[in-house]
Amino acid sequence: MADIQPQNVYDVVVVGGGPAGLMASLCLTTYGFNILHIDERPHPTTAGRADGIQPRTIEVLRNIGGVSTAPVPGGPIVGQPPIGGGGVAKKMISQGVRVYEVAFWDPTPTQKLARTSRAPSCPEFIDVVDNYTLLLHQGLIEHAFLDEIEARRAVLPDAFPTPPNGVFRPYTLQDCRTLPEDASDSLRRTHPVECVIQHADSKANHTIRSRYLLGCDGAKSHVRRCIAGGEVGDGEWQGKITMQGEATDIIWGVLDARVKTNFPDIKYKCLIHSRSEGSIMIIPREANLVRFYVQLQISEGGKVVSVARDKATQDICIERAKKIFEPFELEFGYVDWFSVYQIGQRIASQYTLDDRIILGGDATHTHSPQAGQGMNISMLDMYSLAWKLNLVMKGLGKPEVLLPSYEHERRGVAEELLKFDGAYSRLFSGRGPDAKQLPNGVDPEQFIQMFKQNAFFTSGCGAIYSANALNALPGTEVLKGPHGKAFSPQGVTLVPGQRLTPGRVTRVMDGNNVRLQQEVKMNGAFRIHVFAGDLDATRPALEAFAAFVNSPGSFFNRHRAGAGVRSSVIDGPAALVDNAGGRKSQHVFNPFFTFLTIVGTHWYQWEIDELPSPLRLYRAQVYGDAVFDRRVPEAGTRAPLHCKYGIDMRKGALVVVRPDSYVGAVVDLSEEGWLGLNEYFAGFLQVAPQLPVGGRLKASF
Amino acid sequence: MADIQPQNVYDVVVVGGGPAGLMASLCLTTYGFNILHIDERPHPTTAGRADGIQPRTIEVLRNIGGVSTAPVPGGPIVGQPPIGGGGVAKKMISQGVRVYEVAFWDPTPTQKLARTSRAPSCPEFIDVVDNYTLLLHQGLIEHAFLDEIEARRAVLPDAFPTPPNGVFRPYTLQDCRTLPEDASDSLRRTHPVECVIQHADSKANHTIRSRYLLGCDGAKSHVRRCIAGGEVGDGEWQGKITMQGEATDIIWGVLDARVKTNFPDIKYKCLIHSRSEGSIMIIPREANLVRFYVQLQISEGGKVVSVARDKATQDICIERAKKIFEPFELEFGYVDWFSVYQIGQRIASQYTLDDRIILGGDATHTHSPQAGQGMNISMLDMYSLAWKLNLVMKGLGKPEVLLPSYEHERRGVAEELLKFDGAYSRLFSGRGPDAKQLPNGVDPEQFIQMFKQNAFFTSGCGAIYSANALNALPGTEVLKGPHGKAFSPQGVTLVPGQRLTPGRVTRVMDGNNVRLQQEVKMNGAFRIHVFAGDLDATRPALEAFAAFVNSPGSFFNRHRAGAGVRSSVIDGPAALVDNAGGRKSQHVFNPFFTFLTIVGTHWYQWEIDELPSPLRLYRAQVYGDAVFDRRVPEAGTRAPLHCKYGIDMRKGALVVVRPDSYVGAVVDLSEEGWLGLNEYFAGFLQVAPQLPVGGRLKASF
Repeated sequence: MADIQPQNVYDVVVVGGGPAGLMASLCLTTYGFNILHIDERPHPTTAGRADGIQPRTIEVLRNIGGVSTAPVPGGPIVGQPPIGGGGVAKKMISQGVRVYEVAFWDPTPTQKLARTSRAPSCPEFIDVVDNYTLLLHQGLIEHAFLDEIEARRAVLPDAFPTPPNGVFRPYTLQDCRTLPEDASDSLRRTHPVECVIQHADSKANHTIRSRYLLGCDGAKSHVRRCIAGGEVGDGEWQGKITMQGEATDIIWGVLDARVKTNFPDIKYKCLIHSRSEGSIMIIPREANLVRFYVQLQISEGGKVVSVARDKATQDICIERAKKIFEPFELEFGYVDWFSVYQIGQRIASQYTLDDRIILGGDATHTHSPQAGQGMNISMLDMYSLAWKLNLVMKGLGKPEVLLPSYEHERRGVAEELLKFDGAYSRLFSGRGPDAKQLPNGVDPEQFIQMFKQNAFFTSGCGAIYSANALNALPGTEVLKGPHGKAFSPQGVTLVPGQRLTPGRVTRVMDGNNVRLQQEVKMNGAFRIHVFAGDLDATRPALEAFAAFVNSPGSFFNRHRAGAGVRSSVIDGPAALVDNAGGRKSQHVFNPFFTFLTIVGTHWYQWEIDELPSPLRLYRAQVYGDAVFDRRVPEAGTRAPLHCKYGIDMRKGALVVVRPDSYVGAVVDLSEEGWLGLNEYFAGFLQVAPQLPVGGRLKASF
Repeated sequence: MADIQPQNVYDVVVVGGGPAGLMASLCLTTYGFNILHIDERPHPTTAGRADGIQPRTIEVLRNIGGVSTAPVPGGPIVGQPPIGGGGVAKKMISQGVRVYEVAFWDPTPTQKLARTSRAPSCPEFIDVVDNYTLLLHQGLIEHAFLDEIEARRAVLPDAFPTPPNGVFRPYTLQDCRTLPEDASDSLRRTHPVECVIQHADSKANHTIRSRYLLGCDGAKSHVRRCIAGGEVGDGEWQGKITMQGEATDIIWGVLDARVKTNFPDIKYKCLIHSRSEGSIMIIPREANLVRFYVQLQISEGGKVVSVARDKATQDICIERAKKIFEPFELEFGYVDWFSVYQIGQRIASQYTLDDRIILGGDATHTHSPQAGQGMNISMLDMYSLAWKLNLVMKGLGKPEVLLPSYEHERRGVAEELLKFDGAYSRLFSGRGPDAKQLPNGVDPEQFIQMFKQNAFFTSGCGAIYSANALNALPGTEVLKGPHGKAFSPQGVTLVPGQRLTPGRVTRVMDGNNVRLQQEVKMNGAFRIHVFAGDLDATRPALEAFAAFVNSPGSFFNRHRAGAGVRSSVIDGPAALVDNAGGRKSQHVFNPFFTFLTIVGTHWYQWEIDELPSPLRLYRAQVYGDAVFDRRVPEAGTRAPLHCKYGIDMRKGALVVVRPDSYVGAVVDLSEEGWLGLNEYFAGFLQVAPQLPVGGRLKASF
């Protein structure tokens, strides 16, 4: 193992083996790239650290799916989706515990501590399948990623050798920079990033060239320092990139332990405020552990002050916890992990200087851990960046549009988080604006109110992207263009810049009841959802759309990568089979687009082969819309998903979902609509230098 | 591996490594017994054979759960349910494909072959969570069992060494018999069964003694021959046990293959009748395989006759399949497996002669494979026997009542199956009573009608047991007894002898939304469900019931195994914690009973610790009933499960669920009710020689 040396040239270097770096590595491996992934720690996390996976993150992990390495009788099946498919999500779900409810405990006039309120962790109004927070320690999360990266590397052609699980350890980053163009160095055009890494034990240095380098190396990011320059000051790097925001003097301890207690809600997430001893948050965890976040404050001469950071020991933390829990008994047994943190919120002034060396995760935003957001947003930073890099590296995406959109979209989310976290953590620590009016500085009603109002955001489902080339919202070029009126038809509830909400449909090919959202796994393709409504009304429009798709000028034919370039190692639909006898198909497979046809007319009343090509060719992605949805009971089993999405059954609609399962554009199922989509895609995709040859169906990878 | 030799004495010898034997081995290992499991094949199945797992079987497999062998930080946690828990069910579900719909194809006046009807495989009226048939080849099924057996052996104290996965291969049974009592052989009282097994390669013989021996060695059971005696005649063993029933001359071929076709329903289960070439059933399978059941008939001089069995080759089967599929194209690729069978139905005249050597699975019933029932019923035979053996071997069950109930219950199901299969397979082969009236001998309407009528049975949910000591139905002793009126209160929809139907509840301890049915995994315990209805009305009854349970004369205290005897390696509720301060508990843990309390009053309005002991001690099994159920929309979120089960909110009810998740008895939550339960349990459980000491809570294992 120790023998495996890094190569000299990679597609991407990922610095940092935490959740953000692992997500980057997993996604980019899925897209078929060779990654140099380094981490300075000799081993993955074994205990503690981040532990909460939010509903939207579970949804994403489910969509990343799983690759089976089990042998298949009769040899490999080309184009077959992996058997199993649970992958990272199922592994984590089977190991963690779930929080559905949060309890609030406060002093009352008659009791030292009483449950004053409860609230669902993910309230009913949030339309998400896994409506809970999943809790397990970061090591289990990292291992689920590492296993899946290894499984995907096994199906990657021409993968460079790596240590087990793909991460080179312990390696530190010594330096990194983007080299200026130089005609004498032909590699510079494609691989301008140079970094020097060092094996922590042997001290051997390696100089590596890559196309991109991702800094997922945490709050004290060395990548950030390398590109920002500047001097150390106040714990922050002053230079071309600064960390903006502020810290407080509020110190918290965090502890994973097994306890004996008569506190009735020990298996709940509880937010506990004592009268004068500070606050605690507890979260149930796998293996009977409990995570404690303990405010470390003491009374000094009648004044409440925080414990000094260097005096915040595990014993003090336990002693404070017991005090806050009074009158309940609390006895600590095995302690799995202990740490201390100071509340503060900071965000990087820039995520990148040149769109070559790019930061994400804690390297760009830090905040308090109590809201259970950090790891989630960090992982999703990289999930969001990876598909854009995929398009760019394969020559299909416009780097000048796609790469800046990463910071545009993710900074918005991080800013929202910091705003929430700042108010929330101060309020929880009794340092809100109204703090002085109350004995313990905490206003339970205000706090609970805030908790509930922010549930949409903290579930991850409220991470909304604003208008840009990828999100066809009012104000964008495409909406101002000649076909702008065809976008976001009246009544449609799907909004560009927001995730596709879930819904069940019947897969006509095999009659299976499936989740539409999860039908196409993360494979780098845009998902063109054709909501066909009532076939009697929409047949002509469907035929015209299909003819358009097959025409040389369609987005589908204009935006193609080179011959043989796949979108990912996860193949597309099982097989593009044309069963429709003599009917000719002009369809030439393009792995960066896939079609899902959802028909409102009951699926007993029509045949897949009646649909025009290419829709019928995606046999595994043709659906009937007849599964009862409790969110639209009025629809019964008559096209409930059309009803939920507000799609007119007489007109239908086209819904473009980005590779990260965000809605990109919704247009009428009309010529205006698909011409609008042409403009939408032209906004961020390159036009292929040569159009594909027409003719019979052929899989191009 | 080959070095590991069998011991001389075991609890149980299991002969046969197919699904029935594996189920026996898995269950008995779970209950903590040392099993000698032998199979004459050198390896588990690698292809073909049985492949359909029905909804009720999936439910059972989910209840068997999974044992995690992952290390737990801080050492083992006593009394902790296994992390993960999916086990065999999740593994199979992730590997198989699902059939939700069945299509019927027949000749019509205008078309050679057309889809004439469709039907759900498991219609809406059947209340089951996994409402589909799961398809995967028998080898994958066997491996899921073998892995889980190995995981459970790892947590079994004092397990005898075995080859990997627990099965000794290749070993043949040479002889077996039950020895008569002999005072000079002290082992005979407990271990009267003697068998001789032989290693198939080395020919080394071993003589083994055991308490029981289970014959799961298939249709040609050698165990059956050993105990039945007699001579070979007409393919059946004539002796003390005979196989009763009849064969036909109808020959079918069965084939697993990959095909190319323009037949649109190739991913459905299809029942296809051609005009004059016979019938086919196809079933989609994992890894893009298709299972074909092909009727092998030919025209001879204008008369349709079956192909002779010795002429039924794979090529003929493929040729017949192509003919029957006309006018659709059908091209065969890789063939994974091929076999031939003759339609017939036979059932053993007895399942056992002495309740020591006991037969099950194909050794007791054979029939045609088309209904997808054989493996399911065979596995459930052993699932049903194992918990009874557990009670008997631990000295708690009355052997004279429990062991005969195995044949009583399972023979009933097998007879139902044979009746259905006989009619179904003949009708499908065009040999029904009305065959001559139709060109191809098949009446589609009659056939489809039959298919639909039998869906409840073929789903496995319709395997209903009749009145006996375990199923407190009219006609049983307990119902004729002094407290008989308290059984099956009016309006209650749960029926003894039928499975507990599913329902979701909120686990109060942690607020999780869970399936009540799956909360207690198969651990050998009776599940006493206390439906507490409206607490305002039922509090006095609850208190009285709790006091009764803790009294020396209750079923709970009268029926105890010896000190330190566990019901299974799967522990009970997480921990029996008494948080209720000064309130005294008389509860002494008895692993053969567990309590689940389901309260109709909204769970925000009461605390677990308000409940009387022992109910509050089973903290992990106290539930709120407030989860919407689409089958009782009228209840909204107000006690929907009480509503579905027909339980009066003012009165509550006690529902005893047997260790195999069949309802055993339903009684009023009243003194009459629990005295009735005392009689119910006394009917088949031994009274402990000494009553347990009273006093504080203590876990007895």
